[in-house]
Amino acid sequence: MTSATRFLHIDEPLLLKRGGVLSSYSLAFETWGELNKDESNAVLILTGLSPDAHAASSSSDPTPGWWEPMIGEGKPIDTERYFVICFNSLGSCKGSTGPASINPATGKAYRLDFPDLSIEDIATTAHLLVQHLGIDRLSTIVGPSMGGMTALAYLQQVPAGARHHLSISSSSNSEPFSVAIRSLQRELIVSDLQWNDGNYDDENWPVKGMRMARKLGMLSYRSAAEWRTRFGRRLQDYYPKELFGMNYEVESYLEAAARRFVRSFDPCSYLYLSRSMDWFDVTENHPDLKTALVGIKLDSACVIGVVTDILFPMHQQEEIAQALTDNGVQTRFWDLQSLMGHDAFLVDYDHFLPLVGNYFDQIWQQDALSKE
Amino acid sequence: MTSATRFLHIDEPLLLKRGGVLSSYSLAFETWGELNKDESNAVLILTGLSPDAHAASSSSDPTPGWWEPMIGEGKPIDTERYFVICFNSLGSCKGSTGPASINPATGKAYRLDFPDLSIEDIATTAHLLVQHLGIDRLSTIVGPSMGGMTALAYLQQVPAGARHHLSISSSSNSEPFSVAIRSLQRELIVSDLQWNDGNYDDENWPVKGMRMARKLGMLSYRSAAEWRTRFGRRLQDYYPKELFGMNYEVESYLEAAARRFVRSFDPCSYLYLSRSMDWFDVTENHPDLKTALVGIKLDSACVIGVVTDILFPMHQQEEIAQALTDNGVQTRFWDLQSLMGHDAFLVDYDHFLPLVGNYFDQIWQQDALSKE
Repeated sequence: MTSATRFLHIDEPLLLKRGGVLSSYSLAFETWGELNKDESNAVLILTGLSPDAHAASSSSDPTPGWWEPMIGEGKPIDTERYFVICFNSLGSCKGSTGPASINPATGKAYRLDFPDLSIEDIATTAHLLVQHLGIDRLSTIVGPSMGGMTALAYLQQVPAGARHHLSISSSSNSEPFSVAIRSLQRELIVSDLQWNDGNYDDENWPVKGMRMARKLGMLSYRSAAEWRTRFGRRLQDYYPKELFGMNYEVESYLEAAARRFVRSFDPCSYLYLSRSMDWFDVTENHPDLKTALVGIKLDSACVIGVVTDILFPMHQQEEIAQALTDNGVQTRFWDLQSLMGHDAFLVDYDHFLPLVGNYFDQIWQQDALSKE
Repeated sequence: MTSATRFLHIDEPLLLKRGGVLSSYSLAFETWGELNKDESNAVLILTGLSPDAHAASSSSDPTPGWWEPMIGEGKPIDTERYFVICFNSLGSCKGSTGPASINPATGKAYRLDFPDLSIEDIATTAHLLVQHLGIDRLSTIVGPSMGGMTALAYLQQVPAGARHHLSISSSSNSEPFSVAIRSLQRELIVSDLQWNDGNYDDENWPVKGMRMARKLGMLSYRSAAEWRTRFGRRLQDYYPKELFGMNYEVESYLEAAARRFVRSFDPCSYLYLSRSMDWFDVTENHPDLKTALVGIKLDSACVIGVVTDILFPMHQQEEIAQALTDNGVQTRFWDLQSLMGHDAFLVDYDHFLPLVGNYFDQIWQQDALSKE
């Protein structure tokens, strides 16, 4: 949470998809720009696993956000045109209620008493927030990675919930390879002695498990091609004392990235959100993806995938684009030749800024025409 | 080791590449077929990280070997034509001296007192074995995976050591992505409390670390495309009791595979061999791969890669084939469209048997012609 984070506290029970209940809960979000009079210019950004709601800087919090080059005045998601909302996922530890939040029934953190969390629950609460903000229909729902899953769930629940949809490096379900990568990350965390069945504290934090899980995560977020170019076989500056210590730059890069992450995210939140992605499947009660998306009332969609993404591989973006097209949605599809893998939308702005900018220019003009 | 394993005991010191010394050592191997009178029909098989020397069954050990469909009478590597040797790598725990062997200086297992091991040391000892068997020049040196690295090191050390070379899913060095995957496996093992700085025993075995390292290994040995076809999103038969237990078939498959491995390989051996691959680089003292392979006297080579291999990616096989071609070696190159990833040579026999069979037929005829 940052100084710009706002909260919606709801004191009514929320029934979760898999049967659990939250008696009350908070939703954290941040906004930029102004909602126009006919409430037609709202853009909702749903995030990947770890980001908070601080997607960009603002006067109330000038620190750069996690999507700083993308959102702001004159930027691809232009806050002079749009009222931009970034929602912190239910289950996260960045302001919205999650396993690290206080359970009102016990006065202690939920931890493993938190009910089973689904992507659909994140979507339901995102929609509650949008309603609370007085918005009947979003202009655009934007979802990178897990956020794209949440966006699809949102559109299933609220078929006329948005006029446009931007899906980035996401999927309508998780592949077995992605399930396996996430399953092993979870196993690394719960195998740490300090995990202690969720009873860790600041002094006894599952540091080792979180560090190794993050390294495995990084292996799936970036690409072999990027690291070949970036590190090659360059050695570290110093020869490690440990017998099986790090010899190569790529190893110390991963170590540094993992260390930065370990304390920045709650282990329980990580586990719950990670597993919610495994469980997610838009086609769960449908014969196929096209049928699952029938009825969704979008004027346009843009689906972007990255060829080097091994976690949400390209064919999954193609499937979403095809299913939307088959349902009559005017859909652009881009298979980006970026080296940056799944994380490209966070780091490869040379590729992403023009694409997202063009799409938002297109829908701005499209919406203006439809009003005439 | 099996009942067919033979041993060469050497009581002279071996100076290792990185400076260490073994005062005496054993080399384990197995053979099939008969060496012909002019000692021209020997095929040396160098293995990947974990296999032993028992590549195929024989009258002295009828249990199937790890490359059973490949080696035998009338099979692609035909033991009616060839005298086939499979060498257990130095540093392994399957008969050749390695970290799990008794250190004659102390009477206890070497463990971390084993000197730094390099792929080049495995090659040096493989050549000692070949000399011991009375073979001046091999017909063919065969290396899948790590064995292909060892084969390149062998040919660098003994440029006229073989007339033919079959390289499968191998490389002339390790990519940073592959280094990262192996580095994290090693970290998983040494992070296990039972690792105990190498002082584990049968009752206190680093089971968790080995199990998780093997799962990560499996992620790099197979492919997303294979698992998509094989498992899809099928659930396990039972719902796990553990909160973050296994939900999907792919998870229980990995668990079973990992459990089979945990006790079958010595953790120290795993670490030493794993790191030797990271360190390996044919071009270490050369400007490029072509120059590194100058002088190698091969009549032919066959280089096979698999398009879904993420551990030894296809471009690394192309580089070997190109460098051999540039050095005037008649080289076949195959980019196999197998779904089975790095492990395809062990499991996708539909693809591999005809290719290897054709290559051995070709060199059999080529050698017959050159004798006329």
